[in-house]
Amino acid sequence: MIIVLKPDASNEQIDHLIKRIESEGLKTNVSRGAYRTIIGLIGDETKIPVNTLQSIPGVAQVVPILPPYKLASLEAQPEPSVVDVAGVKIGGGYLAMIAGPCAVESAERMDEIAASVRQAGANILRGGAYKPRTSPYSYQGMGKEGLKILRETGDKHGMPVVTEVTDPRCVELVAEYADMLQVGARNMQNFVLLTEVGQARKPVLLKRGMSATIEDLLMSAEYILSQGNLNVVLCERGVKGFDPATRNLFDVAAVPSCKQRSHLPIIVDPSHATGKPALIPPCALAGVAAGADGVHIEVHNCPEKAVSDGPQALLPEQYAEVAEQIRELAKLLGKKISVLSGEPV
Amino acid sequence: MIIVLKPDASNEQIDHLIKRIESEGLKTNVSRGAYRTIIGLIGDETKIPVNTLQSIPGVAQVVPILPPYKLASLEAQPEPSVVDVAGVKIGGGYLAMIAGPCAVESAERMDEIAASVRQAGANILRGGAYKPRTSPYSYQGMGKEGLKILRETGDKHGMPVVTEVTDPRCVELVAEYADMLQVGARNMQNFVLLTEVGQARKPVLLKRGMSATIEDLLMSAEYILSQGNLNVVLCERGVKGFDPATRNLFDVAAVPSCKQRSHLPIIVDPSHATGKPALIPPCALAGVAAGADGVHIEVHNCPEKAVSDGPQALLPEQYAEVAEQIRELAKLLGKKISVLSGEPV
Amino acid sequence: MIIVLKPDASNEQIDHLIKRIESEGLKTNVSRGAYRTIIGLIGDETKIPVNTLQSIPGVAQVVPILPPYKLASLEAQPEPSVVDVAGVKIGGGYLAMIAGPCAVESAERMDEIAASVRQAGANILRGGAYKPRTSPYSYQGMGKEGLKILRETGDKHGMPVVTEVTDPRCVELVAEYADMLQVGARNMQNFVLLTEVGQARKPVLLKRGMSATIEDLLMSAEYILSQGNLNVVLCERGVKGFDPATRNLFDVAAVPSCKQRSHLPIIVDPSHATGKPALIPPCALAGVAAGADGVHIEVHNCPEKAVSDGPQALLPEQYAEVAEQIRELAKLLGKKISVLSGEPV
Amino acid sequence: MIIVLKPDASNEQIDHLIKRIESEGLKTNVSRGAYRTIIGLIGDETKIPVNTLQSIPGVAQVVPILPPYKLASLEAQPEPSVVDVAGVKIGGGYLAMIAGPCAVESAERMDEIAASVRQAGANILRGGAYKPRTSPYSYQGMGKEGLKILRETGDKHGMPVVTEVTDPRCVELVAEYADMLQVGARNMQNFVLLTEVGQARKPVLLKRGMSATIEDLLMSAEYILSQGNLNVVLCERGVKGFDPATRNLFDVAAVPSCKQRSHLPIIVDPSHATGKPALIPPCALAGVAAGADGVHIEVHNCPEKAVSDGPQALLPEQYAEVAEQIRELAKLLGKKISVLSGEPV
Repeated sequence: MIIVLKPDASNEQIDHLIKRIESEGLKTNVSRGAYRTIIGLIGDETKIPVNTLQSIPGVAQVVPILPPYKLASLEAQPEPSVVDVAGVKIGGGYLAMIAGPCAVESAERMDEIAASVRQAGANILRGGAYKPRTSPYSYQGMGKEGLKILRETGDKHGMPVVTEVTDPRCVELVAEYADMLQVGARNMQNFVLLTEVGQARKPVLLKRGMSATIEDLLMSAEYILSQGNLNVVLCERGVKGFDPATRNLFDVAAVPSCKQRSHLPIIVDPSHATGKPALIPPCALAGVAAGADGVHIEVHNCPEKAVSDGPQALLPEQYAEVAEQIRELAKLLGKKISVLSGEPV
Repeated sequence: MIIVLKPDASNEQIDHLIKRIESEGLKTNVSRGAYRTIIGLIGDETKIPVNTLQSIPGVAQVVPILPPYKLASLEAQPEPSVVDVAGVKIGGGYLAMIAGPCAVESAERMDEIAASVRQAGANILRGGAYKPRTSPYSYQGMGKEGLKILRETGDKHGMPVVTEVTDPRCVELVAEYADMLQVGARNMQNFVLLTEVGQARKPVLLKRGMSATIEDLLMSAEYILSQGNLNVVLCERGVKGFDPATRNLFDVAAVPSCKQRSHLPIIVDPSHATGKPALIPPCALAGVAAGADGVHIEVHNCPEKAVSDGPQALLPEQYAEVAEQIRELAKLLGKKISVLSGEPV
Repeated sequence: MIIVLKPDASNEQIDHLIKRIESEGLKTNVSRGAYRTIIGLIGDETKIPVNTLQSIPGVAQVVPILPPYKLASLEAQPEPSVVDVAGVKIGGGYLAMIAGPCAVESAERMDEIAASVRQAGANILRGGAYKPRTSPYSYQGMGKEGLKILRETGDKHGMPVVTEVTDPRCVELVAEYADMLQVGARNMQNFVLLTEVGQARKPVLLKRGMSATIEDLLMSAEYILSQGNLNVVLCERGVKGFDPATRNLFDVAAVPSCKQRSHLPIIVDPSHATGKPALIPPCALAGVAAGADGVHIEVHNCPEKAVSDGPQALLPEQYAEVAEQIRELAKLLGKKISVLSGEPV
Repeated sequence: MIIVLKPDASNEQIDHLIKRIESEGLKTNVSRGAYRTIIGLIGDETKIPVNTLQSIPGVAQVVPILPPYKLASLEAQPEPSVVDVAGVKIGGGYLAMIAGPCAVESAERMDEIAASVRQAGANILRGGAYKPRTSPYSYQGMGKEGLKILRETGDKHGMPVVTEVTDPRCVELVAEYADMLQVGARNMQNFVLLTEVGQARKPVLLKRGMSATIEDLLMSAEYILSQGNLNVVLCERGVKGFDPATRNLFDVAAVPSCKQRSHLPIIVDPSHATGKPALIPPCALAGVAAGADGVHIEVHNCPEKAVSDGPQALLPEQYAEVAEQIRELAKLLGKKISVLSGEPV
């Protein structure tokens, strides 16, 4: 940590500051420049929060040197993590192909979609049972019944399943049915929920919030990791932007940015990122080219009848086409894709 | 709702669409232009979600006419709501003066700060017992013990108290101690929590999320209202911006924007909006001048020792100064400020 | 300037860096921390650009201490500048009231509007002769003819006039007719134009670009100042935001933010900032309450017939109402407003 | 165009509006819904600007149906444009490889870099002679001398050259020396400059502004096209974002978004988009995977000595590596790359 003092900081203020820092067992290095005095902290700088230092009279600016996340950092683990979702690997050279409808709507619909995406090459099935909806009047999901359908469909087709959990009181229940728990973008800083999924013993798919920086995302991952759950997969799904051309702004640079800082796998979700079917395939490929460890795409066989987010889903045949392109690109990049056991039903 | 068709929409597609709409009991008005065909929906357009219409082949664009919120709208209630927090009125010409530390730290500290802000003219006391913190390693609040201290301090100084609730499992507990429940910016779209506070019988202070539009904010209010809790106060506290000059970007136009659409009171929080003490007073005055129904300011008597967000707090004497300016401005604007009973302790 | 080295920076890299810095005549202070080595620069740090330092192997981060603007800074001039526009003062306690149509349309229309805004209390008349329009098919302004009309109207009503210049080749011409040159938001970083207006001997109204930080704005002002033209007035007119509720996002905190860093006056333009007549008066008052040195409002007596930006103009009677409120607020805040000589025509 | 009326619009207002529209030779289709009346315009809707309609009393909302750009639209030309830069094709299946230093610094440096990028596979050489710099105290470019060096270097190595023009008075001069004129992001809405380059007879590389929507970008292209210069190549180079993790926010979805609307080629510039060498190769590949028609990368053989933007440049060996990856990806996607005549020097 480096502390830059105000030009008019008094000697009393500087002395008070140094004493304060040293009282925490840290050492200081004081550099008196032509215009400003600068104090460097030597030792475990987490002992004094940045905010506290900023409140001390005479301080102009505090510059942290170390990232605030620890377990998520490359310093903690230089080699990439590989997260195993009931046999399907994500990260460390393995590319996940996650697909399925926005919401679980019925056993029959789920079965049809699962059959088509497995046939097309998906290796993890998604489907929402608890839907966080902007409007209280919108469809809110099938709840426990949806979880059962998702589990049965996954079992029938030999696919691990991932589904969103929105309520800390439901984490245990969802973990009973699902192979991977999704924390949605709107809940990325729902720290109560993060703490609960951190105590679950299932991998977590953590989606980036719409106004979250990469550092915010890694701090939210740290909440989960610090509870002992090390199986966290990050997901870039678009941030808030100013251009109505797309639903969100797909920040593809987040993929290499995260990899520069963290060992955690990161996948992309071009469905939510763009909100427009025509843009999903090019953005899926862009994500893989940028180094993503997986692609999450919403697929529905009758978007017009989807209860939620129909217009951003691909049709099964569109998914099959982009899945083929993703496989070719993955091959070029030397990535592997976990193969499911059993034949497609 | 208006549906704009693609230039190449076929007659079959148009017929299918019209049948689909009419099957929901709605009527249509078809206008064939030189370049595009347009269909107007006549009747209760909430029967078909925008998303569904957008998924139907041939549809280019769907333009909603009515706002998606109902109870929060001026159509539902043209005159401004007045929310009563244990005798202190907010809205309809009443300006609330909310002040206190970011976090409840100890009974003694709380007592000192309460005494100073009441003396300065605050009429609601704030203090966090459950703190949503970006880092799992930061101070997370005193919990129930903090609630008790806040309650006792409020009682001693004759001030209603407001505190944040972050966990749906704690809503009942917090409502036992507090006169007003705060839902923080990071939880603005935590719909599980919104539903719970909607069932509580205490007023709610709903802070705008960092990437929430005015419509998103009103939709979140609608969650609470639709559960039967009509005592919702909105709060503008800054949205995500690109300029590191301020912590957030204080969207002062949100105040008149909300008032153009909703009867709900809206207050401003210049502490979180700016994150810089020097900017808090001018932004507090700006908010009041723009028509805000209250001002929420963090005050701490020793920011250097604050366990959370010290640097954005005003000192008691700074608060007293801006409170005096707010009162003068309120007078000029014809606003009233509820007077607490009893003398300052 | 502080240079933070990478954790794995070699001794050779550190030595190379130190030699490089010292070769520019600067001294260094090296602090070897537990995790990182930090080098402080002592001396005139403008001798080595931040970018250059960042390119040197082993360097992780470069933290500038001094602001990159000089003439615009409070260090250069601690007391507020007062800019005189043909007798009307802006800044240093003086509030400017700038009003008029978006574009000069005809002598008659200009005369009507000038009469009404002068009557309402405006002391500077605006009107565009050269319009920067998003579309090549939109009205582009009357050009020189418009300048003449503006000048004659100003003279008739005894009001100084301000108008936009968009072309470096027209600066001299515009300066012949206008008392103040406006540089629009889209040209805030048109450095060729800034250099030209810096050489003109007329005050400049510099509008903040839609994605400009406060620092960017002050750097653009620095371009003008560094050419010898010290009469620069800044203008906050909204930045790009994500919410379609308003045309732009009015960053009212920019007013005190600029005042914390610069002596230059800053005014607000709620017309462009909000783009909605109903939001203009509350945002105008918010700007003044935040400390602005003037208010710029577009006024048109028949918005339906305006050739440009009609819907964001106030009607003359609406302007008269908000002007009265601004005067009352200015009085409360102890601000003065330059009085024009002569009687309204 | 569709006009939505206010709920309380009077019959007089509706009649006035209809007459106004019909007076322009347009027809109307009036639909009276349960809640709102809607008027559709039939005919050439460019006859009445959106703004004018929005100013007419009783009007709530105006929804344009047709895009405001014409020549740039797919309606004007459904097949992709191929722009020819002195023999190097861009668009329509051809991928451009543009590389070179930020600024032309000396003949020797330019020669070294040109040799290395040509060897690595670049087919267009870039280099700035006029630099738009945020600070008036930064290096502003070599001017005409730089143009000469660039031209000579291009000729020696058999590479077409592209360079930025910032001043409308210099367009002719720059067009004498360069094969392609670049309009930078900060000048994307410098309409005076756009008009000048529209009259030049050289291809134009138009960079997207930092707060420009896709529609804004296409409107700026329209300025150039409408002057008769049809050889416009768009460039995505990152928009303003809130995360300091990258210099700008690389909007890779802009590539397919533009292709959905326009026949103009679009390339990506990951150097400016990310500002970090480590992120340039993954983002370059992402752009190509998303369908970009070219990649623009800054290369410098001694970033530490670069006079401008050194830290975001790749070293020649880094460029060679990513160029090889781009070629492999282009092959997979079926893209061609124009081959320069002659052997690398």
